[in-house]
Amino acid sequence: MTHSKAYAAQAADKPLAPLDIERRELRPDDVAIEIDYCGVCHSDIHTVENDWGGSLYPVVPGHEIIGRVQAVGVDVRKYQVGQVVGVGCMVDSCRSCSACETGLEQYCLKGMTGTYNGRDRHDKSVTLGGYSEKIVVSERFVVNIPEKLDAASAAPLLCAGITTYSPLMHYGVKAGDRVGVIGMGGLGHMGVKFAKALGAEVTIFTRSESKMEEARSQGADHVIISTDPAQMKAARETFDVLLDTIPVPHDMNPYLNCLKYDGKHIVVGLLTAVEPPLQAGMLVMKRRVLAGSLIGGMPETQEMLDFCAEHDITCDVEMLDIQNINEAYDRMKKGDVKYRFVIDMKTLKDSA
Amino acid sequence: MTHSKAYAAQAADKPLAPLDIERRELRPDDVAIEIDYCGVCHSDIHTVENDWGGSLYPVVPGHEIIGRVQAVGVDVRKYQVGQVVGVGCMVDSCRSCSACETGLEQYCLKGMTGTYNGRDRHDKSVTLGGYSEKIVVSERFVVNIPEKLDAASAAPLLCAGITTYSPLMHYGVKAGDRVGVIGMGGLGHMGVKFAKALGAEVTIFTRSESKMEEARSQGADHVIISTDPAQMKAARETFDVLLDTIPVPHDMNPYLNCLKYDGKHIVVGLLTAVEPPLQAGMLVMKRRVLAGSLIGGMPETQEMLDFCAEHDITCDVEMLDIQNINEAYDRMKKGDVKYRFVIDMKTLKDSA
Ligand SMILES: [Zn+2]
Ligand SMILES: [Zn+2]
Ligand SMILES: [Zn+2]
Ligand SMILES: [Zn+2]
Repeated sequence: MTHSKAYAAQAADKPLAPLDIERRELRPDDVAIEIDYCGVCHSDIHTVENDWGGSLYPVVPGHEIIGRVQAVGVDVRKYQVGQVVGVGCMVDSCRSCSACETGLEQYCLKGMTGTYNGRDRHDKSVTLGGYSEKIVVSERFVVNIPEKLDAASAAPLLCAGITTYSPLMHYGVKAGDRVGVIGMGGLGHMGVKFAKALGAEVTIFTRSESKMEEARSQGADHVIISTDPAQMKAARETFDVLLDTIPVPHDMNPYLNCLKYDGKHIVVGLLTAVEPPLQAGMLVMKRRVLAGSLIGGMPETQEMLDFCAEHDITCDVEMLDIQNINEAYDRMKKGDVKYRFVIDMKTLKDSA
Repeated sequence: MTHSKAYAAQAADKPLAPLDIERRELRPDDVAIEIDYCGVCHSDIHTVENDWGGSLYPVVPGHEIIGRVQAVGVDVRKYQVGQVVGVGCMVDSCRSCSACETGLEQYCLKGMTGTYNGRDRHDKSVTLGGYSEKIVVSERFVVNIPEKLDAASAAPLLCAGITTYSPLMHYGVKAGDRVGVIGMGGLGHMGVKFAKALGAEVTIFTRSESKMEEARSQGADHVIISTDPAQMKAARETFDVLLDTIPVPHDMNPYLNCLKYDGKHIVVGLLTAVEPPLQAGMLVMKRRVLAGSLIGGMPETQEMLDFCAEHDITCDVEMLDIQNINEAYDRMKKGDVKYRFVIDMKTLKDSA
C-alpha cells in the first residue's frame, strides 16, 4: 500500500478537508499515476452532498484526472513510466459482457465501477477519486494524453468532453448539419467546440439576452434566446441535432419543435423527471427522437482525446488551489465559473 | 363532378348519417376508385367528435380504403381500370420537399393532405374520406393491393398496418431481436404479426391476467402482465425494441427499464402528454431512445403490402354494415372489437 494525500468529505454536510488515504499495491494490469490536475465536475458536488443517495463516506471526488505514470504492473503493455495519462469516470467494468466487448464499458451489463464512490471488483473497497496525489488504475481504464494537449485544460475532457463528443459521434453529426447546444456551461461549451470541429453550423440556445456576447465568444454561429417565443417559432423544424446539457427539469417541447423530421434531441445533463411533461405528438408527428447518452467507452475516450489534439480543442478552465475547493463548489452552484475548475494538484503535494 | 353516396357527421355531437357528396372530375394524374371496403380507425372517431379541434364539417371519415379502379386520368401510368387498389391516410403532399423526395410524404415540410378533414391543394375543398361509394385520388397516393391479399381484411393495413410496420423497419428489427408490443388493439396485433414475420421473439405487455390467452392467440411468444412488478422487474434490460400502441397517457418508465442499452421505445399511439413524467435517467444511463413514428410514406406503404402478401399477413377484422357505424363507434370506445371494424361498402351502395 502507498500513502496518498487527498481531500475528502466525511459527511453530506461537511466541507471537504485533507485526509490521508491508501492506494493499493499494483496488480499485474495496474498503472500507478501521480496526479497533476483534476477537473471539478458537478457530479463531485452531488456525491459529496449525497444528492443522489448512496454516497459512501469518506468521499474523495474527482474523475477528470491527468497525471504521469509512476509505475506499472508486470502485464501492462500500453503505458510506460513518465507518460502523461488520464483517467475519467470509470476504473473498471465486467470486461466480458456484450457492452464491454464492444468498448461501451459505461453500459456494462453488470455495472461499471465509478472512479469514486464505486466498489472495487476485487477487494470491495470504496473507490477514491482524483482529489488526491496518486491513483492506481487498471490499464484498460487509462488513456493516453497526446503531447500536443495542454495537460491542465485537457483534464475536463475526461468527463465533460467525452459526454458531449460521444453522442455527436453516435448520431453521426457531420459537416453542414445544424446543431443546437442547449446550455452554456462546462458541457455546453465543449459541445459547441466539438460540433464546430465536425463542421456543423452551431446555434447556442440561452435563456437570457445578456449571454449573447458570451455565446458568440464560445464560437457559436448563431444564438437563440429560448425565452423569446418569436425566435423559437422562427427556429421551428430547422435543426438536425440538439444537445441538451441543462441539469435541471425544463420544458423540452419548444426545443423538440425546433427539430426537423428525424431530428434528435439528446439529453446529457438531466437524470430526473422531464417536467413540464413531454408531448408525445412532438415525437410522433415528425419521427423525432429523444435520446440519452452517458459519457463514452474507453476506446471512444481515447479517440476523443486524439480528435482534440488534431483539432486543438481543450476546455476553458480556471485553475484552482485545492485549499479553495469548498469556495469553488459554492461558485459552481451559482454557475460562476468559465467553464470548469481544474485543481492544480501541486497545491496538495506542497501542503503540510 | 360525380355524385357519391357517403356517411358524414354534421357536427361533433351528431351521429353519422347518409349524405350525398361530389367527387371531382379526374385531373391528369387522378385515379377514380369505387370503394369496396373501408376500415374504421380511432382517428375517425376523434375527427368526428372534434377531439383534436379543427374538424371541418361535414366530416366524411375513413382512411383505410380498398376498391377497384373505375377510371384513370390521361397521365396515369401505374393503374388500370379494374385493378384492386388502396388509399391510406394521405391523398397529397407538396411532392418536392426533402421529405417528399425521399418518399416520406407523411413528414412533408409543407404538411401532407389528409384523406379526410384536409384541404385539397388545388381547389381548397375539404377532403372527404372512405365512408363513401367513390373517391378520386392522385396516383402517387394510391397503392396496389396484391391479389393474394383478402381485400376486406387488407383494408386496415393502410393505417394500422403501416403505422406498426414502418417503425419496425426504420429501427431495423431483425431475426432474433427481442420485441415487446405494448397494447393489444388494432395497432398492437398488427405489430405482433410484423415483428413475428421479421423473425423477432415477441412479447405482449398487457395490464390484465385475463388477456393472457388472447395474447398468446395473437402469436406472441411471451406475455408480461405489466401491472405485476415482479414480472416487470424480471424483464429488466431484456428488450431491443418496444412498440408502444397505447393511445392514452401511461407511465413509460417501467417499460423503458425493460430495454437493453441502446434499446428503442417507439410511440405510435399517443399524441398527448407523457404522464407520469418520463425520468431522463432512464434514457441517459443506458443510451436508450424514446421515438415516435407516424404511418409511413407511399413507397413504404406499397412495400408493406407486398410484405403482407409474401408473409400472409392481414388484419383480424369484424365486418360491418355502414348503417351500424354509430354502434360500432360505441363499441370501439369500449375496446370491444377484435381488432378492427371494416365497413362492407356494398351496404352503402345498396341503400335507398
Ligand atoms: Zn463528471
Ligand atoms: Zn461488462
Ligand atoms: Zn388511422
Ligand atoms: Zn413535401
